[in-house]
Amino acid sequence: MNKHLVFVLAPDSFKESMTAKEACDAMELGIRKVDPGITCIHVPMADGGEGTMQSLVDATNGHVIKMNVTGPLGSEVEACFGILGDGETGVLEMAGASGIHLVPPAARNPLVTTTYGTGQLIKACLDRGVKKLLIGIGGSATNDGGAGVLQALGGRLFDQYGQEIGFGGGELGRLDRIDLTGLDSRLLEVQVEVACDVTIPLCGPEGASHVFGPQKGANAETAGLLDRSLNHYANVIKEQLGKDLMNVPGAGAAGGLGYGLMVFLNGRLHRGVDLVIQYTDLEEKIKEADIVWTGEGSLDFQTQYGKTPLGVAAVAKKHNKPVVALAGRVGEDIEMLYEKGIDSVFGIMKEAGSIEEALMKGRENIEKTAESIVRFMYATRGLR
Amino acid sequence: MNKHLVFVLAPDSFKESMTAKEACDAMELGIRKVDPGITCIHVPMADGGEGTMQSLVDATNGHVIKMNVTGPLGSEVEACFGILGDGETGVLEMAGASGIHLVPPAARNPLVTTTYGTGQLIKACLDRGVKKLLIGIGGSATNDGGAGVLQALGGRLFDQYGQEIGFGGGELGRLDRIDLTGLDSRLLEVQVEVACDVTIPLCGPEGASHVFGPQKGANAETAGLLDRSLNHYANVIKEQLGKDLMNVPGAGAAGGLGYGLMVFLNGRLHRGVDLVIQYTDLEEKIKEADIVWTGEGSLDFQTQYGKTPLGVAAVAKKHNKPVVALAGRVGEDIEMLYEKGIDSVFGIMKEAGSIEEALMKGRENIEKTAESIVRFMYATRGLR
Repeated sequence: MNKHLVFVLAPDSFKESMTAKEACDAMELGIRKVDPGITCIHVPMADGGEGTMQSLVDATNGHVIKMNVTGPLGSEVEACFGILGDGETGVLEMAGASGIHLVPPAARNPLVTTTYGTGQLIKACLDRGVKKLLIGIGGSATNDGGAGVLQALGGRLFDQYGQEIGFGGGELGRLDRIDLTGLDSRLLEVQVEVACDVTIPLCGPEGASHVFGPQKGANAETAGLLDRSLNHYANVIKEQLGKDLMNVPGAGAAGGLGYGLMVFLNGRLHRGVDLVIQYTDLEEKIKEADIVWTGEGSLDFQTQYGKTPLGVAAVAKKHNKPVVALAGRVGEDIEMLYEKGIDSVFGIMKEAGSIEEALMKGRENIEKTAESIVRFMYATRGLR
Repeated sequence: MNKHLVFVLAPDSFKESMTAKEACDAMELGIRKVDPGITCIHVPMADGGEGTMQSLVDATNGHVIKMNVTGPLGSEVEACFGILGDGETGVLEMAGASGIHLVPPAARNPLVTTTYGTGQLIKACLDRGVKKLLIGIGGSATNDGGAGVLQALGGRLFDQYGQEIGFGGGELGRLDRIDLTGLDSRLLEVQVEVACDVTIPLCGPEGASHVFGPQKGANAETAGLLDRSLNHYANVIKEQLGKDLMNVPGAGAAGGLGYGLMVFLNGRLHRGVDLVIQYTDLEEKIKEADIVWTGEGSLDFQTQYGKTPLGVAAVAKKHNKPVVALAGRVGEDIEMLYEKGIDSVFGIMKEAGSIEEALMKGRENIEKTAESIVRFMYATRGLR
């Protein structure tokens, strides 16, 4: 051995198989079978979607707190938020309180679903005295433009008769007046960073209602109604609050929650993986690394998968570090991944079989694949 | 680049997916995508079973000749033999003329199946003037102790009434006298090397009839009859020819054809992969290699699979060369492979799916995996 090797392990979760932290553990097990002298720095990653809170908590040695909140349909659900290792950053996922998975398919109806529970999680973070809030938005059951969050934090929305409007995207069309006098004043002291898909605007054919409404239970007619309602909501806000943010890319994320967090919490929208990279100090850790390991359950270029490994690779390439990626499924277009800075991609499967079997064997397969890679590296050392 | 790299590519066939030569081609495609300057020396391997003739022909730039012979049930079948690149070595597989795959399951009956066609292939090689014969035996439909081979080459087997006995293991019990006066005299000039499973004896509970009879169509009673017939056959041979070889390990291979080739052709039995290694000059080629690549459709330690990669690894280790193995299926016990000289094992599958899909994508998956390995090697060069 010439030098002491340092590996940064920065995988995303392998969905339905293991968390990002568990993927780090499996990689390290395989790596250290070959050489226990290798230092493995775990930086569990995420892309702003499911698993983001857990990865950030794991990466910073933070902790998770459970609580009951109002679910998307108004009944109580258990959700959780995290406090990062610094003790002053709260992290939460909107899907935990207001996610589509909380609503049975037959009951999905974005006219009535609310982000109120997400607002309660934010309030709970404020109660803990946080100075920063990281909010992952994605996987929502809602199309309420963040109105529920506002209501949970003390804002009030009235119709033309002076009555408070109810929950859900269907109510926004009746909005006449916004009253922020009761809004939780602690929000003024808190920096809000939002991890989301930073592409879609609030309204229009490319907006929240038309693009994502259908998968939340809206038919074409309902989607049109939701779009008009969000548009009315944004016009009221523009008139009364002077904020014109409906066309910011990402405003339409999570049924317009992206918009709501910008308007009411001064939230800044980020690509999820960028925010995770920042809050895990990935770049500092990569500077010390000999090899950067990443991975994801499915890895290709064309779909929604692979964003985390590509984000990790972009950071690694800034510092000229080799990047190896492991994946349960490797897509057809891996050449594109190579062009984006991933040096080498290994599938982890050891035999033919169903997806269910593959998910079950995920950890073992990661471990064995990591071991094989390091064994190959050691066996061929000095060759080039 | 510090030096010009040389890779020896020595995989077995990936059964039902590609020949060993095709596996070499796929490996080279992936390797040369990374660096066209790498020299790839193809040494398609085999373990003495199916694919052995083709691999040896491919490895030596020989050629294959087709002919009609008597199949295991007496009807004509098309079979082939090879002449190696040296022009004086014939190579054939008994399964091509007398194999179990030539007999439909309902017709399988080792009392009547004959190795006569294998004898005809040998005769055809003699007609070509070969000085050496390499015979892969395995996958047989027969249990005739090589009597059919002897008959095809001019030997005669008589019963107590002076009548020639018929084909098949069931006839051997009637053998009374062996007449070798008509045996093809060219055999005296030819060195015969036999590739087989060098474990089982001719007779007894661990012998040909009891161990392999059932999969050739024998029930317990028939297996007992076959075992007694082979025993009688060997006793007649011992008395009349003075050869006592029934307990040589491998005598029972291919329904006693191992025994017959020893007795009548002075054949020497070898572990299949060892013979292939010798006739492909693998060791000389490995001496020049930086990395030795091997592989097989399925790779583990406990079963019949993996013999070729382990044989290749043993040669590579003599010269301290790194060995990397690719496999469609990687068994549970890869640590055992590591102990036997394989440095690193990579599964080639890129996603969950059926065996049929995996077999279809074999070449593409080998190519991509080889590319990933070399990409990793180049990306991490200089690290150790």
